[in-house]
Amino acid sequence: MTFEGQANMNQLGIVKRHVPRADRAAVEALARHGVATLHEAMGRVGLMKPYMRPIYNPAHVCGTAVTVLLQPGDNWMMHVAAEQIQPGDVVVAAVTADCSDGYFGDLLATSFRARGARGLIIDAGVRDVKELTAMPFPVWSKAISAKGTIKATIGSVNVPIVCAGALVNPGDVVIADDDGVVVVPAAIARQTADAALAREDNETLKREKLAAGVLGLDMYKMREPLEKAGLRYVD
Amino acid sequence: MTFEGQANMNQLGIVKRHVPRADRAAVEALARHGVATLHEAMGRVGLMKPYMRPIYNPAHVCGTAVTVLLQPGDNWMMHVAAEQIQPGDVVVAAVTADCSDGYFGDLLATSFRARGARGLIIDAGVRDVKELTAMPFPVWSKAISAKGTIKATIGSVNVPIVCAGALVNPGDVVIADDDGVVVVPAAIARQTADAALAREDNETLKREKLAAGVLGLDMYKMREPLEKAGLRYVD
Amino acid sequence: MTFEGQANMNQLGIVKRHVPRADRAAVEALARHGVATLHEAMGRVGLMKPYMRPIYNPAHVCGTAVTVLLQPGDNWMMHVAAEQIQPGDVVVAAVTADCSDGYFGDLLATSFRARGARGLIIDAGVRDVKELTAMPFPVWSKAISAKGTIKATIGSVNVPIVCAGALVNPGDVVIADDDGVVVVPAAIARQTADAALAREDNETLKREKLAAGVLGLDMYKMREPLEKAGLRYVD
Amino acid sequence: MTFEGQANMNQLGIVKRHVPRADRAAVEALARHGVATLHEAMGRVGLMKPYMRPIYNPAHVCGTAVTVLLQPGDNWMMHVAAEQIQPGDVVVAAVTADCSDGYFGDLLATSFRARGARGLIIDAGVRDVKELTAMPFPVWSKAISAKGTIKATIGSVNVPIVCAGALVNPGDVVIADDDGVVVVPAAIARQTADAALAREDNETLKREKLAAGVLGLDMYKMREPLEKAGLRYVD
Amino acid sequence: MTFEGQANMNQLGIVKRHVPRADRAAVEALARHGVATLHEAMGRVGLMKPYMRPIYNPAHVCGTAVTVLLQPGDNWMMHVAAEQIQPGDVVVAAVTADCSDGYFGDLLATSFRARGARGLIIDAGVRDVKELTAMPFPVWSKAISAKGTIKATIGSVNVPIVCAGALVNPGDVVIADDDGVVVVPAAIARQTADAALAREDNETLKREKLAAGVLGLDMYKMREPLEKAGLRYVD
Amino acid sequence: MTFEGQANMNQLGIVKRHVPRADRAAVEALARHGVATLHEAMGRVGLMKPYMRPIYNPAHVCGTAVTVLLQPGDNWMMHVAAEQIQPGDVVVAAVTADCSDGYFGDLLATSFRARGARGLIIDAGVRDVKELTAMPFPVWSKAISAKGTIKATIGSVNVPIVCAGALVNPGDVVIADDDGVVVVPAAIARQTADAALAREDNETLKREKLAAGVLGLDMYKMREPLEKAGLRYVD
Repeated sequence: MTFEGQANMNQLGIVKRHVPRADRAAVEALARHGVATLHEAMGRVGLMKPYMRPIYNPAHVCGTAVTVLLQPGDNWMMHVAAEQIQPGDVVVAAVTADCSDGYFGDLLATSFRARGARGLIIDAGVRDVKELTAMPFPVWSKAISAKGTIKATIGSVNVPIVCAGALVNPGDVVIADDDGVVVVPAAIARQTADAALAREDNETLKREKLAAGVLGLDMYKMREPLEKAGLRYVD
Repeated sequence: MTFEGQANMNQLGIVKRHVPRADRAAVEALARHGVATLHEAMGRVGLMKPYMRPIYNPAHVCGTAVTVLLQPGDNWMMHVAAEQIQPGDVVVAAVTADCSDGYFGDLLATSFRARGARGLIIDAGVRDVKELTAMPFPVWSKAISAKGTIKATIGSVNVPIVCAGALVNPGDVVIADDDGVVVVPAAIARQTADAALAREDNETLKREKLAAGVLGLDMYKMREPLEKAGLRYVD
Repeated sequence: MTFEGQANMNQLGIVKRHVPRADRAAVEALARHGVATLHEAMGRVGLMKPYMRPIYNPAHVCGTAVTVLLQPGDNWMMHVAAEQIQPGDVVVAAVTADCSDGYFGDLLATSFRARGARGLIIDAGVRDVKELTAMPFPVWSKAISAKGTIKATIGSVNVPIVCAGALVNPGDVVIADDDGVVVVPAAIARQTADAALAREDNETLKREKLAAGVLGLDMYKMREPLEKAGLRYVD
Repeated sequence: MTFEGQANMNQLGIVKRHVPRADRAAVEALARHGVATLHEAMGRVGLMKPYMRPIYNPAHVCGTAVTVLLQPGDNWMMHVAAEQIQPGDVVVAAVTADCSDGYFGDLLATSFRARGARGLIIDAGVRDVKELTAMPFPVWSKAISAKGTIKATIGSVNVPIVCAGALVNPGDVVIADDDGVVVVPAAIARQTADAALAREDNETLKREKLAAGVLGLDMYKMREPLEKAGLRYVD
Repeated sequence: MTFEGQANMNQLGIVKRHVPRADRAAVEALARHGVATLHEAMGRVGLMKPYMRPIYNPAHVCGTAVTVLLQPGDNWMMHVAAEQIQPGDVVVAAVTADCSDGYFGDLLATSFRARGARGLIIDAGVRDVKELTAMPFPVWSKAISAKGTIKATIGSVNVPIVCAGALVNPGDVVIADDDGVVVVPAAIARQTADAALAREDNETLKREKLAAGVLGLDMYKMREPLEKAGLRYVD
Repeated sequence: MTFEGQANMNQLGIVKRHVPRADRAAVEALARHGVATLHEAMGRVGLMKPYMRPIYNPAHVCGTAVTVLLQPGDNWMMHVAAEQIQPGDVVVAAVTADCSDGYFGDLLATSFRARGARGLIIDAGVRDVKELTAMPFPVWSKAISAKGTIKATIGSVNVPIVCAGALVNPGDVVIADDDGVVVVPAAIARQTADAALAREDNETLKREKLAAGVLGLDMYKMREPLEKAGLRYVD
């Protein structure tokens, strides 16, 4: 349980070129599920903070992470990241300090798409949302801002990052939809997809019962534990 | 002017079964008006905080409140509340501490709808917004979050609650639209609907005049009071 | 570089009637560009804070500013402002203290439109968003709130104001779209439009190259400066 | 469990003169405990939101509530409230909309103190904090702001209010310290004081054991339930 | 009422060397009053947002503004500003985008003090607060952050800026204390000081009356206007 | 550069008992420096978000991390963590969702201190701040709240966590003072301490020069690069 990546994480100015991506079949299996289901399937961990919102609705993306560590007000590393994108990737970007500037617009989206990127997750701002919506190029961000950025200070690409409260390693699977963004570590991508599938089968049955008027109180056998917990019914 | 409900409000673990709802005809009369109009008709009180937003636009709901007091990260009481729903109700949920977790999703929505609920107002987060939008099941919340909840601690159902800064008694009328959420106490539902109707008739006339170019300055006879207040025109 | 307007800015209770608007042709030239482009063309200044959001998407407006300085919870000056509107204007409103109340709804929008206003930018709340969307009357605000306001205290119209962090002089050009709101001083409206045009021509070329797979790293000749800055590629 | 106060609460422009205060002996008994203890003793309800902070540390107050409902940017009702203060009271003020203006300063504090007030709890801003600290007059607020207010619109005094998320009835006991603010309904003041006393006796014992190195795991017999819950120890 | 400074304000990369400061005697007269009083004396304008807080209490400063426009995460211009400081100045700094980085610490404070600066007002973060407190060098900021900044992009010195919502021209008087920060334009420094003095004399009398138990209701003759406004006393 | 810890991080319900702490001598060497210096010495990484504030000033702590992953509103794992504390440790706690509840008070502080803990860093709320200040037991938190927590759901102890935006591995060095909180990975503790020492020696010299009136412009030889960057001096 040592954390080998730590030392490198703390060094700025690194681009890691060869990153093993999560198994492609597992990625596609994960793509069939929503973020809420996957979060449950993983035992309720791995979510980014709920301030990360899609720039348009509905939106959904699933892919392997190319990570970017940016400096405040500076998007130089986004161009460095573009070269590291492989088809099926999702770019995941964090900033070394809180910043709402518009780091990404339609030019970068055009470049990212040409490289095969499926979307962007960024703990900062983006702009050109009308154009991004028209493309469409899905983006989850914490802000929308017309404020541009400079290209003066280096950060890193494909190092472990903390994005909106979640740890993301390059190659991890990132899934985002209207409910938020979840990170599935590459090593457990397959088992998470299997757990999600089992969970969804189970939910279909429950949904039918509930639609027919069965109460969760009865379906989940909650009446006895509620009574034990001290719940009292009064008139 | 004693507040009989107070003592009970401070006791967790209670479900009140027999709650007199606001008069049905008054509820339907209130349903014909928007939240902004009703808020004015009540004398500018009863609004929830503006951070309460619909998960999709446009949205509108009007019904009688089933109230729920939840614990942070725990949605157990939502299942208890489902049983207390009567056709025409709106579920209104508060949490004992600030929490943005996703307390409610498409399974609970299916159950609530089967019981006759018209919508949900929750001072916390919800998830499955794509599915809720498709149903459609209208929800006003302070957050959208894929983060699920547990079922370990009891709260209460149908006690007076404070939701997003507004006091809600079970049986009160709750109206929500794209402008926000307002609570009309059951006892004044009818008179509020009447006041709103008078107000809207009045507004139609005003709208026509303003569209024709008449100034509010003249229509509302504001020029003299503005001058008295010291307003000066300069070149 | 003295600031003549200062003394007047600090006096409440003033309505300036004769305000020279930015050159009409320059305004229409600016209208052809988005906020992100104009912000770049001006050298990355003049933006309002990103919390200013359109009440519906997509939205776009460009016009000359009629400025309003409001008191908290009081929209009296909005009616005074209506009389000062000329066709092609955009009303820009600030409040002397933070306030999320709904200062503006469909009645005022009807009046503003009848006077020729193209839209509203307000560092506060608005209501009747469903009706405003249907008109459509474009509004950028920091909040949506059904909470109405009173008419008791005077402010000012057509004085310099600070709105969402940006200085706005009456007659300046204000452009707003899905990315935010930017203020172009009347004196530099023409040159800003020219700079934006040059910039957009340039962007079309870049977009084509990027779409063809050319990397920004090569197109912008970034590889050498990145190496000089110390960027290291590892395996 | 009807809520008689509701109808009155929704009417602005009322001053209730004769308000039964909580039993004086119970108030003094409550004054011997901290907010955290009282909150536990009441079953974890009745707290205001944690954004309510004392203007200086340490601070502590306990008294019976005179409630005030204010309008945004308007402190007229504070003067009306002054007349209703009796020795031992704490003034508790809410605003009909979010507002950070400085509603209260050293002049009003001088007046409140002369009437016998022990402190102020206000869901808005205050000013003159240096003078208030020197008096000392304890205040809990959500903001400090030099921004003054006007006297133009009426609100109410001694009606039930929602202050920072907590329902407060006039005459209730309000206790505030460095940890926050809690409201104890008059009807349960005595029993809450008794429960708090029992709780604190218990805590003294626990503190001694913990200081001696006994683990909570053993003192509270948590090892077995943790194991049942699935906790695993690894090397 | 043209705003000559506007064009320059929109140009980055400028240092204005010869700035007329407000009259020294007027500055010292203003220094005798608190921010709340001065804000009232100016007619309730000119305040910065209340999120600007002193890094230690109590704190007070009054001086003439040297303004700085910074880039996000970049404090290069602070060194340029140091050279422009004259004894009696207060440095007032804004950033072109929201940023909480620590732009200022004990080294810069040492330099600023050596040049004669009385304090710093910055709409961003600062660090070394323990050392700044020990000096003591008074600072009002929106954040405290150990995060350092770079020196890569130029901004401006002594141009008009918007700082925490307030317009500041170089040479204006800036006064800050525990209640917040207010800007007095150089042109009205003397008259504002006079108005403040009159106001404070008046307040001393009022304070004595209120301390003696006289009610504001009577002292300000509010009973009749309250009754006219519809206030009702009930039992 | 694989991240071995990832898989375990995503499993709740784990307590790791044998955690190698950072070298004791390196820890004590780090303890001699402030957070701002250490952050610079590490290349401007490793900081927690600036919303993490000490509950009293001045405060300083340096120690090896025992990490805790908590559930919202539930502090059960704090008791489990107590047993894992060794003299010289600092407890660092994160929650799986945003929560401001008071997870920690004087009883737990008594227990932690008896085990040898030097302080607590928690991305949530704490209470009993008066008692913690009196002990004194240093705590950095995002909130102060009297709201207590339950003991119903398990989390983990000594797994890698993300706390206030920073990755913390058990055994890392955590340093906190009035400027914030920084995490130094165990593997680079010694080199970071050395770099900080060199940096501080350097700063003493600079401080003397600046105090003597030398400008940073000259000391850092900034005039030429500023001119190259386009800075213009005007009169």
